[in-house]
Amino acid sequence: MTAATLTIDLEALCANWSTLDAKSAGDVKTAAVVKADGYGLDAAPIARALHKHGVRSFFVAVAEEGTKVREAVGNDADIYVFSGMMLTDAAHLKSHNLIPMLNAPKQLYQFRSECSGAPFGIQLDTGMNRLGMEAEEFIPNREVAQDAKLIISHLACADDPDHPQNAQQLEQFHAMTDGLNAPKSLAATGGTLLGADYHFDMCRPGVGLYGGAPFQNAFPVAHLDIPVIQSRTVRAGETVGYSAGWTATKDARVATLAAGYADGLIRAMGGNDVHLYAGDVACPLIGRVSMDLLTVDVSQLDDVPDTLSLLNSHQTVDMLADAAGTIGYEILTSLGNRYARRYIGE
Amino acid sequence: MTAATLTIDLEALCANWSTLDAKSAGDVKTAAVVKADGYGLDAAPIARALHKHGVRSFFVAVAEEGTKVREAVGNDADIYVFSGMMLTDAAHLKSHNLIPMLNAPKQLYQFRSECSGAPFGIQLDTGMNRLGMEAEEFIPNREVAQDAKLIISHLACADDPDHPQNAQQLEQFHAMTDGLNAPKSLAATGGTLLGADYHFDMCRPGVGLYGGAPFQNAFPVAHLDIPVIQSRTVRAGETVGYSAGWTATKDARVATLAAGYADGLIRAMGGNDVHLYAGDVACPLIGRVSMDLLTVDVSQLDDVPDTLSLLNSHQTVDMLADAAGTIGYEILTSLGNRYARRYIGE
Repeated sequence: MTAATLTIDLEALCANWSTLDAKSAGDVKTAAVVKADGYGLDAAPIARALHKHGVRSFFVAVAEEGTKVREAVGNDADIYVFSGMMLTDAAHLKSHNLIPMLNAPKQLYQFRSECSGAPFGIQLDTGMNRLGMEAEEFIPNREVAQDAKLIISHLACADDPDHPQNAQQLEQFHAMTDGLNAPKSLAATGGTLLGADYHFDMCRPGVGLYGGAPFQNAFPVAHLDIPVIQSRTVRAGETVGYSAGWTATKDARVATLAAGYADGLIRAMGGNDVHLYAGDVACPLIGRVSMDLLTVDVSQLDDVPDTLSLLNSHQTVDMLADAAGTIGYEILTSLGNRYARRYIGE
Repeated sequence: MTAATLTIDLEALCANWSTLDAKSAGDVKTAAVVKADGYGLDAAPIARALHKHGVRSFFVAVAEEGTKVREAVGNDADIYVFSGMMLTDAAHLKSHNLIPMLNAPKQLYQFRSECSGAPFGIQLDTGMNRLGMEAEEFIPNREVAQDAKLIISHLACADDPDHPQNAQQLEQFHAMTDGLNAPKSLAATGGTLLGADYHFDMCRPGVGLYGGAPFQNAFPVAHLDIPVIQSRTVRAGETVGYSAGWTATKDARVATLAAGYADGLIRAMGGNDVHLYAGDVACPLIGRVSMDLLTVDVSQLDDVPDTLSLLNSHQTVDMLADAAGTIGYEILTSLGNRYARRYIGE
């Protein structure tokens, strides 16, 4: 194999779920968000491992994603679809027993017409202005909402516990739903960590399961090892890579590795304090990230190993994200298709 | 369907190949680089269309990628592997009749030992210091190189025609290969446009085929249409999206669309002069790009259509790249797995 190996630690995933589950009181359910193909790690083994671990509620982004999760976990679980019901979704939702989070009165009327009697959820907008019914859309439909399997909203600023919008959205969620018997949920990972006021009947962590901020004590789930194609001596004054982006200030040994931005190693991380690890030894990424290749200064190594590691206990998805000017979520969901994928604890 | 639709215009792809093919004299072959899964557009239909159009030489990054291309085009084509021969590649290379571009004496000796008599290429480093043999590694092996099916090198700065490194690498390529009978190739898309001095026996365009710079007159190949989930009125002073990233200065109509950075719509483009098109009408992308969602100011539309377009003849991959602080190559190779893919001219 010349492709890099992405190792996904399902035991770490389940341990992260359990830690987040323990943040809420015993009668609060903890779901798992497995959208974006399990945050880029493959929704099938991810959902299967979590289901085996006891999870019975899953969330995906669009109806098509629900198919894979249903096949992975069988019928003994609820699968919710954040985008609700669109266009020609009815048959798909019914055949896979997926629960749409209806986002607008139009979706609600369509669902009740085309899928009469089937379970549904409702998503409310409490201030993010992205998905969900506004108060003036919801209030005339509160009676119907009594039949909802779940009523949710989403926090815009939960990664920042001090942001005033958290309390404003909490207040608005109460104003819209107090008195309704249907189960309610407001918290993703960030909201789970904000405390019991935000937990209602269900927490639904996503990124925290996969080892990303704002869950600071998460175990890393994704580990990435990249083969070395070759190494060479680069003399002082010579340059490396596209646009001659790196210049050797002294003689150096440079290794070329078989992964690049086409594998989701975001090009913006080039030159920004990223390292490839040989065991515990950190070797600087140098020059520009190419489509299929990385170049690394391995001068300090006595021997260049067959592979070097980019994601590990030394360098997390959040550290790569800082280097690339983004968030750990995007590092995870960008991980590409060329990796050989290996699952621990399957 | 709730997923967005990525339309790939194979007729535009083949027209781009023909235009680039016409840049070189008649006896110079023109190959096609289809690595990174055909620059994110799926190497199978891409290679099949180009093969039908007359292309008989293809390049991939790693041996595993060659399998898909071989299955797509049959046996009547040469498939070259840029990373050469690594570790346990021998059986794979032989069984799929792939031609490794050997990058180091070690690869050369291993190949001749394990795959005696099979065709091979050689990649030389002429100044990029990334892949290929250095002069001192190559010169002792020049005799063996007479048997190579192809000898190549790669330009680091060809996107910038005025960069002095282009001429330096050209000179070095001549110094290393003059007098050898094996066919030679130095030019990718940028080199193809630098003129006949850079063409040797084969040009091997990549990004230009797919409609990206530095080939300025390329037809766009990828078109992306994204469904609208819902739209809402946002009052002056209200905010939209994560971290309340956008504030309405006057009442606005905001649509939420079903694609995000997990679909390769790089998060860094948020807020940077990107538009979603309703026909010829440009509607600004607002707020942060979410994992699965975009928010768009559609105030100027009388009716919000079922889909809005992100990639089209108005807004190219290079324009999105400028907004995201990257290059068109990364926009293409990031395009994700959730899209419904439609091929024109298959």
